[in-house]
Amino acid sequence: MGMNEPLNRKLRMALVGGGQGSFIGRVHSIAACLDNRAVVTAGALSSNPERAKASAPDYGIDDARAYTSYQELLDAELKLPADERIDFVSIATPNHVHFEVAEAAVKAGFNVVCDKPMTYDLAQAEQLLETVKNSDVVFALSHNYTGYPMIRQAREMILSGELGEINAIRSQYIQGWLVEAMEHQESKQAAWRTDPSKSGAAGAFGDIATHAYNLGRYMTGLLPDQVSCHLKTFVDGRRLDDYGTAIITYENGALGTLTASQVTHGRENDFEIEIDGTKGSLKWRQENPNEMIVRHNGKPHQIYTRDPKAAHINAMGRAACRIPAGHPEAFFEAFANVYNAAFDDMAKRACGETFERRDSVYTNCYDGVEGMFFIQQCVASSQENAAWVPLRHDAARK
Amino acid sequence: MGMNEPLNRKLRMALVGGGQGSFIGRVHSIAACLDNRAVVTAGALSSNPERAKASAPDYGIDDARAYTSYQELLDAELKLPADERIDFVSIATPNHVHFEVAEAAVKAGFNVVCDKPMTYDLAQAEQLLETVKNSDVVFALSHNYTGYPMIRQAREMILSGELGEINAIRSQYIQGWLVEAMEHQESKQAAWRTDPSKSGAAGAFGDIATHAYNLGRYMTGLLPDQVSCHLKTFVDGRRLDDYGTAIITYENGALGTLTASQVTHGRENDFEIEIDGTKGSLKWRQENPNEMIVRHNGKPHQIYTRDPKAAHINAMGRAACRIPAGHPEAFFEAFANVYNAAFDDMAKRACGETFERRDSVYTNCYDGVEGMFFIQQCVASSQENAAWVPLRHDAARK
Amino acid sequence: MGMNEPLNRKLRMALVGGGQGSFIGRVHSIAACLDNRAVVTAGALSSNPERAKASAPDYGIDDARAYTSYQELLDAELKLPADERIDFVSIATPNHVHFEVAEAAVKAGFNVVCDKPMTYDLAQAEQLLETVKNSDVVFALSHNYTGYPMIRQAREMILSGELGEINAIRSQYIQGWLVEAMEHQESKQAAWRTDPSKSGAAGAFGDIATHAYNLGRYMTGLLPDQVSCHLKTFVDGRRLDDYGTAIITYENGALGTLTASQVTHGRENDFEIEIDGTKGSLKWRQENPNEMIVRHNGKPHQIYTRDPKAAHINAMGRAACRIPAGHPEAFFEAFANVYNAAFDDMAKRACGETFERRDSVYTNCYDGVEGMFFIQQCVASSQENAAWVPLRHDAARK
Amino acid sequence: MGMNEPLNRKLRMALVGGGQGSFIGRVHSIAACLDNRAVVTAGALSSNPERAKASAPDYGIDDARAYTSYQELLDAELKLPADERIDFVSIATPNHVHFEVAEAAVKAGFNVVCDKPMTYDLAQAEQLLETVKNSDVVFALSHNYTGYPMIRQAREMILSGELGEINAIRSQYIQGWLVEAMEHQESKQAAWRTDPSKSGAAGAFGDIATHAYNLGRYMTGLLPDQVSCHLKTFVDGRRLDDYGTAIITYENGALGTLTASQVTHGRENDFEIEIDGTKGSLKWRQENPNEMIVRHNGKPHQIYTRDPKAAHINAMGRAACRIPAGHPEAFFEAFANVYNAAFDDMAKRACGETFERRDSVYTNCYDGVEGMFFIQQCVASSQENAAWVPLRHDAARK
Repeated sequence: MGMNEPLNRKLRMALVGGGQGSFIGRVHSIAACLDNRAVVTAGALSSNPERAKASAPDYGIDDARAYTSYQELLDAELKLPADERIDFVSIATPNHVHFEVAEAAVKAGFNVVCDKPMTYDLAQAEQLLETVKNSDVVFALSHNYTGYPMIRQAREMILSGELGEINAIRSQYIQGWLVEAMEHQESKQAAWRTDPSKSGAAGAFGDIATHAYNLGRYMTGLLPDQVSCHLKTFVDGRRLDDYGTAIITYENGALGTLTASQVTHGRENDFEIEIDGTKGSLKWRQENPNEMIVRHNGKPHQIYTRDPKAAHINAMGRAACRIPAGHPEAFFEAFANVYNAAFDDMAKRACGETFERRDSVYTNCYDGVEGMFFIQQCVASSQENAAWVPLRHDAARK
Repeated sequence: MGMNEPLNRKLRMALVGGGQGSFIGRVHSIAACLDNRAVVTAGALSSNPERAKASAPDYGIDDARAYTSYQELLDAELKLPADERIDFVSIATPNHVHFEVAEAAVKAGFNVVCDKPMTYDLAQAEQLLETVKNSDVVFALSHNYTGYPMIRQAREMILSGELGEINAIRSQYIQGWLVEAMEHQESKQAAWRTDPSKSGAAGAFGDIATHAYNLGRYMTGLLPDQVSCHLKTFVDGRRLDDYGTAIITYENGALGTLTASQVTHGRENDFEIEIDGTKGSLKWRQENPNEMIVRHNGKPHQIYTRDPKAAHINAMGRAACRIPAGHPEAFFEAFANVYNAAFDDMAKRACGETFERRDSVYTNCYDGVEGMFFIQQCVASSQENAAWVPLRHDAARK
Repeated sequence: MGMNEPLNRKLRMALVGGGQGSFIGRVHSIAACLDNRAVVTAGALSSNPERAKASAPDYGIDDARAYTSYQELLDAELKLPADERIDFVSIATPNHVHFEVAEAAVKAGFNVVCDKPMTYDLAQAEQLLETVKNSDVVFALSHNYTGYPMIRQAREMILSGELGEINAIRSQYIQGWLVEAMEHQESKQAAWRTDPSKSGAAGAFGDIATHAYNLGRYMTGLLPDQVSCHLKTFVDGRRLDDYGTAIITYENGALGTLTASQVTHGRENDFEIEIDGTKGSLKWRQENPNEMIVRHNGKPHQIYTRDPKAAHINAMGRAACRIPAGHPEAFFEAFANVYNAAFDDMAKRACGETFERRDSVYTNCYDGVEGMFFIQQCVASSQENAAWVPLRHDAARK
Repeated sequence: MGMNEPLNRKLRMALVGGGQGSFIGRVHSIAACLDNRAVVTAGALSSNPERAKASAPDYGIDDARAYTSYQELLDAELKLPADERIDFVSIATPNHVHFEVAEAAVKAGFNVVCDKPMTYDLAQAEQLLETVKNSDVVFALSHNYTGYPMIRQAREMILSGELGEINAIRSQYIQGWLVEAMEHQESKQAAWRTDPSKSGAAGAFGDIATHAYNLGRYMTGLLPDQVSCHLKTFVDGRRLDDYGTAIITYENGALGTLTASQVTHGRENDFEIEIDGTKGSLKWRQENPNEMIVRHNGKPHQIYTRDPKAAHINAMGRAACRIPAGHPEAFFEAFANVYNAAFDDMAKRACGETFERRDSVYTNCYDGVEGMFFIQQCVASSQENAAWVPLRHDAARK
């Protein structure tokens, strides 16, 4: 907690997007500031200038730094003295805007934390990766579920071989909020998420299946081979998928199954993942995130809980905890863990130290390319009746 | 409970298979006799004559009717006076023996309760169906999970339209007991189940995926269109699949996903199914079978429990209950519910009444054909890299 | 399963009570016959002669042995040849009738399985214990929850010291069915249970708190010292308690807390018990009986399941299982386990062998005395504003 | 979120206690700042001056305002211009220090947020209440569990009569961390909590039973009548209770049962509460706080989740949510909800508006007096063998 070593001061954050009515903008600001390592200093909160200004007090942004466009923000901040200037830009806009903001911010030399999916399409993602590679900025992608302590715990367990060879990854990300045609009602969230010009080539698969795919990759490090995908649109008139399933083969022979739904009545944000290894299996569910069940044939099922003092909780798991066992941490805290890992590198950069860009603890620009490739290939497979298409992208981490 | 109306006496059961060391034979006898409607009267408990005799006392079978082969059993029973002769034969042998026993029993005029999968392959199943059609016997197939009160409840809810149009069926049947090569150890259960000459064309898919497929069909009545299946064998040297996933399209446009595993560490018999409709969704898990969760957007999740007095429990659900809410019923009781429904028809037959053979409450010979077709087509699809193959068989019920 | 060693035949059961509309009579007959070790042979199913006769076919009792009173039953059976005569009497009547039936059956030399609470009051219980002591019969009391595999498992774990010294027992037995004044409606079950002349001195405490007290005693073997009890009647006009709580001190210094309710909306038969020891704790819940959670500081929570093949399942746990892990067993099967343990002793007796009467695996006449003493002392304490009263009775087992 | 209406700026916080190694200090600062309504501005973080200084950067406190005692803090802040001066003091010290800090802060005119239990003993609490009454400050007590959305939901449901007349409150607060004599090891947390000179008259009952008692009061508004309490110390040499149970009678005839343990192996912070009313019951468990189960006889169990858009979530429940259903909120967010309600009143005060002091949404000084009275009377009862003692204090809210 507290200052950013070795920088020894808070980082200054600019938020793009997040105007009134936004869900994810507020999440970014709370997560970034949770551990007192950053302060929201500037913003371009809306493409509507009036809303941009009006939303600033919500974040404690001074009117002077409540900009009405991201371009203005970047220009103005660059003119400020280094010790006042923002350190990083968090992007919480609809998907189709991510690229231009991120590209400009990176080119301006600012670190970036971008919401997922990283861009509108793969071409943008690949271009952005090149831009980042040619820069020295820290670029984090907020696949927030990777920040849960139990996920970090599982990752270390699996990468260290505790579960043996991995045979299977089963994930389901099930929601219900789009079972009615919300996009024709008042819902701002529903409107852009079901609009191909804003959301990208996929609906449910872009919005949530990417999380599920990313989490399996993050937890296991398995490199994918091919995917066969079947997308469905169950709500009449909807222009993007609201349901789908993908079969993923991995290079080591493992099999992945992934189902995403936004049309399952009553389900909220019910994301679960189970991983089979030759020495053990584990299962985690986002809606009860402080627990993970670990199983071995012939032994009692073991419920691992977020217990920073327990011997079976490894270094990655422990580092992601703030408070003792039994005091639940949740969505914001996991999100903050992604930020914190990025802050570590931002502080290093600011002090001239090197940092790992590709295999970082936080999800990053490489993960973003993979995510966009996943979306593209799932859509392509689905358009050809679930044909097998390649899923291995050169930018894959590990 | 009690007598079989309008017959007014217990039914006499012969058990084929079930010798010492059998799991499923005992289950059949307990289930058949649970409600005092049948008594085990004769048996051909093992192909080993000594074991056949030695096992008889376990079932309370008189030595005189402890036969050493099913042929002997059928012959001898036919010679007994009608009021002593068995009423039905329960078949609890390994899969490859089902057909010949069932065929002979039906031809001898005995009702049959056969374990699943019904036969060794589809050809046998289709032939057996013809034999049954040409007879007047009652033929039940013990897809026992269809007997759980919550499943019966769900079926009536869905068939009556309470969930609206069905969009999706997700099922997972996850076990772990074959994660080690048990077939090379002492396990009799593992040995025949992984032997293609006894188990049939599929391993996990024949043993458990058939249950999952059948349950989805039973609960929804949706007719299948095509299947794309990917089977895996994770244990070295194993000759049949121990893991696999199938994507099923239904004629109404619904999508089914089904994963079966016998190699997930620590999982026992973890079969769960979730069904999405346009008006609601529901989910049930076999290991906690007295509950079912029903969900509607914007409403509290509803946990239906096995409560025969509650107004929301429908006639099918209620009829499957024996005792008040909170007193759990489980595996044997569900199995007995399948038997009881078959007994209803056996009693009708014995009294010269007609009965419904294709859309019966119990799973039957038509379901058996569908099950064998499912196995055949899944194997065929898998062999062609998960190609789409037809899944609609003329014998499908409904 | 099967025959009763060394007797080598089924035992013949007479059922007293259990006429049409009874819940517990059917449970007794199913449980007794589940494993093919007994057959219902005779009955005095109702005090109403017509109902007694009419109910007989439900149990497969021949009309000739469908008696119209327990006296007639005992007299008639005694006159039958020994190889036709019943072996034991199961008593499933309302509480106030238990004593006279049991006393007469024991004096007639028949083994008895009696529903709980054993008698109407303590004096009857003590007298019955004397009668049993002066006989050579097997006397079992159907505290059925003691038959669950996980309870047997826990008992052996605790008695062998696996949890260390026991510090605390917390139990809650929560139902809701009497939250309305059911006794003024149609409910036969409610009517006698809330009638002091039939149920005894206590309502909820006689009906369900006795189970909770007994289970704690059975699992831990701790001898009680004193009890302080507070009984409440929340439903207007009810004549017995429908809610209450008891604090129990044990001789070793442990503290017990026990709450029973019949007026908690929506609760079914929600009986849970948790036990704290210096080396570990465990918790079990009747409505999900195939699981038990075992906890140790600093270790993952361990879910023990009913897995007869697992190394951590001890001999008592394993002996109580019929089928593999993941195939749930439930209420009837637990009840049958109590019967089976009694059958073991009945077979021994019939063959002239000795058997343990006081520390038997099944709950027995000593437990019955303790249960009646518990009820009496709870009522006495409650009448004196929860004063401490002694709870240690000389007849306590162990 | 954001600014404090009608004040329109962030509030300035001073933290007393919370030096390195503290658990609750960090919780207070995160909770207070979570929604961007306050900023930690000053601190007296430790009684050890070096630690006080060294801990300041963790909270982003300037060295100039990192005081070495609370007296210095109050004096120095009073000398600052009003627009720089702190608005409130959060007290996160061990219990025995609460009083002097709070008393001084109130007298200096600063608002206070005090950790619970409010003081070392009842006399201090009563004196502090008088001091607060004679001031115009806002005084909040951080009974943080009252901030969970489901608790707020339940409170409104109950106070509006949705559950009918309340008959019973059952609560259990079960931990295991003190099952070993941690106080003789390295644990700072254990050391002061088991030291009567720092913790007060009770151990587990002061630390956690107060939460349970308070939550029942907060949710139901029932006024207590009497308590009978039995405290135990299971760990040798410990000077305070580590286990105990209390029976509470309420003025309306309801019965409360409350058990607290710090010696139950493996239990973390397992606080659950269930409330019975004549029209329904509900149950909530802190370790899975986004759910609450609501039950009505004859209806499915209803799982209410933290869903700010659902019609069955009332105004109080909705106001306590930040993000959509399925994205779990947890401990920090609940704690922040207590702060936010206090901030509402602090902003009113700063703008000269009146506010409700006794029946505030946040727990307050009146609750603090009740809590200390509860501890005192539980200890008194326990010392007289669980005698009934009065529990109604004049300062009780409602």
